[in-house]
Amino acid sequence: MSTPVNRQLLLKTRPEGRVGREHFSLVEAPVPALADGEVLVRVLYLSMDPTNRVWMSDVPQYLPPVAIGEVMRALGIGRVVASRHAGFAAGDLVQGLVGWQDYAVVPADQAAQLVKLPAQSGLPLPTLLGACGMSGLTAYYGLTDIAPVQPGETLVVSAAAGSVGSIAGQIGKIHGARVVGIAGGPDKCRYLTETLGFDAAVDYKADDFRQQLKAATPDGVHVDFENVGGEVMRAVLSRMVIGGRVALCGVISNYNSGRAADDVGVLISKRLTMRGFLILDYRKSREAVQTLAGWLRDGRLKAEETVADGLENAPDVLNRLFDGDHRGKLVLRVDPDA
Amino acid sequence: MSTPVNRQLLLKTRPEGRVGREHFSLVEAPVPALADGEVLVRVLYLSMDPTNRVWMSDVPQYLPPVAIGEVMRALGIGRVVASRHAGFAAGDLVQGLVGWQDYAVVPADQAAQLVKLPAQSGLPLPTLLGACGMSGLTAYYGLTDIAPVQPGETLVVSAAAGSVGSIAGQIGKIHGARVVGIAGGPDKCRYLTETLGFDAAVDYKADDFRQQLKAATPDGVHVDFENVGGEVMRAVLSRMVIGGRVALCGVISNYNSGRAADDVGVLISKRLTMRGFLILDYRKSREAVQTLAGWLRDGRLKAEETVADGLENAPDVLNRLFDGDHRGKLVLRVDPDA
Repeated sequence: MSTPVNRQLLLKTRPEGRVGREHFSLVEAPVPALADGEVLVRVLYLSMDPTNRVWMSDVPQYLPPVAIGEVMRALGIGRVVASRHAGFAAGDLVQGLVGWQDYAVVPADQAAQLVKLPAQSGLPLPTLLGACGMSGLTAYYGLTDIAPVQPGETLVVSAAAGSVGSIAGQIGKIHGARVVGIAGGPDKCRYLTETLGFDAAVDYKADDFRQQLKAATPDGVHVDFENVGGEVMRAVLSRMVIGGRVALCGVISNYNSGRAADDVGVLISKRLTMRGFLILDYRKSREAVQTLAGWLRDGRLKAEETVADGLENAPDVLNRLFDGDHRGKLVLRVDPDA
Repeated sequence: MSTPVNRQLLLKTRPEGRVGREHFSLVEAPVPALADGEVLVRVLYLSMDPTNRVWMSDVPQYLPPVAIGEVMRALGIGRVVASRHAGFAAGDLVQGLVGWQDYAVVPADQAAQLVKLPAQSGLPLPTLLGACGMSGLTAYYGLTDIAPVQPGETLVVSAAAGSVGSIAGQIGKIHGARVVGIAGGPDKCRYLTETLGFDAAVDYKADDFRQQLKAATPDGVHVDFENVGGEVMRAVLSRMVIGGRVALCGVISNYNSGRAADDVGVLISKRLTMRGFLILDYRKSREAVQTLAGWLRDGRLKAEETVADGLENAPDVLNRLFDGDHRGKLVLRVDPDA
């Protein structure tokens, strides 16, 4: 193996508001020789997630923020090209926090965080990051463990055309709920009802958003799978039944602004339970992945991925999460041959 | 009985910010003859509660807002002076939504909401509105049903010198928790630790509030009994352990401003469960009242009431809830002979 060049995107300054290329340094470094216990991974795909934006900010969060000068942290899928760790061999397909770079040298003490993926899952790699990966698992546990939805109940999902929301809504349908999705624009709304089988879709960009939501939830809302926060969440909470449950997955509307736009008062008047959760508490469950994969094969679950290309484009691609111009899971192909 | 004159405070305009006398009309009206099924109640004491302020605003809430021109709604204790309802007789002591007036004519269809109080409870009437009334029951169910606190856990209570908070903190101690109270000013803080037996008290008005809170919660916070919202809640949530529970009783910091100053993002990073509740869901439980009364008699629970006088002063007295110049339960004596 010739010594490959490793392109890396290092966090240069902390963005306020939108992410730009100017917040990162693109550097080229040789891949170092492996020390004992280390694993060298060729990054194939990177998962583009709203939480990446949070990691760039020096605010309290569940992981330390990415340090200035550090490779931007991100989940991805790669192939082991060399290993001095007993648990991994060249050729293994792995998932982990590989970061915004062509090659990740995984230190010995972090190799345990790498998850080996089955060589022959029959699923495309982007799907292993999406519907059968972190996004799908988040939707799955949110609606089974955090705020289980019962047959006949009304479930509202915000950011419903996104990677987690699109799966959450379909899981709601599989569980027998009436499912209303909130998304931006008529195209996405049609996608929810015509392709994904949602019972109704509401356009949060429309002037009559609140009226649309009211009309779509005549019996109120029993469960809110919340991805957005702020004004969108406020509208949903106003429609909830007394004693309703909120699976709080994300507040993407706050991530770029850094401003808190939420109001918990309605939790009192409606006696709501809001429960925040993180998928990292659910150690990768074979059962959940197999359930999701089974639904995909049966056609009960539809998954869409938007694949963008080029490591150097990572900052712009990440912004698309906040622009709402894509559907389903957004991934970045790092290796053109992947 | 000569026909008494009934002074009534009618909501004239909706306050923005603080409540003033100018928002109410003080009118005098004769007490009408009772129709079949009605009950006439002489109001003795009125409970002054933060929720009264919410009822004045035309915002979504758990009861309809008080209409302009309507008697201001309030909970109180009174004595039945005449009854054409089979369930009540002259002389009965009752509690209910009697409103800001000397005499309440309770319509037949609302008489069922009146709760008859024992003639000889051995407890002062203000205590029946406070520690053994709505305030005490709120604290009781918040820490037994909504967010049960376990021995050895750390409980934080905000507005801890207030009617609900002072009882909640003491119930936490009775249940074996380490209890930290948040209150405004050194006098109240001393009251919490020296009189009520809290383990620590933190002054939210102090410049080093967050440092004080951190020092008082070295093992983090397991349960937050939240009465305040906004900046105070944000500080408490930042100290919570992963998986902590929030009994969301009130967000008094938002009631006058009408602004939403909360941020639910931390619920995700800390995987918190926040559950809003209202005491009206707990039908007056003999058991809870007897438990609280027993603790009061044993001296395990200390209750303090601040009694103000004069129906005409109701708006100013209500403001004291937001000024934080009182301790314990704030009640208004309407009948000078009570």
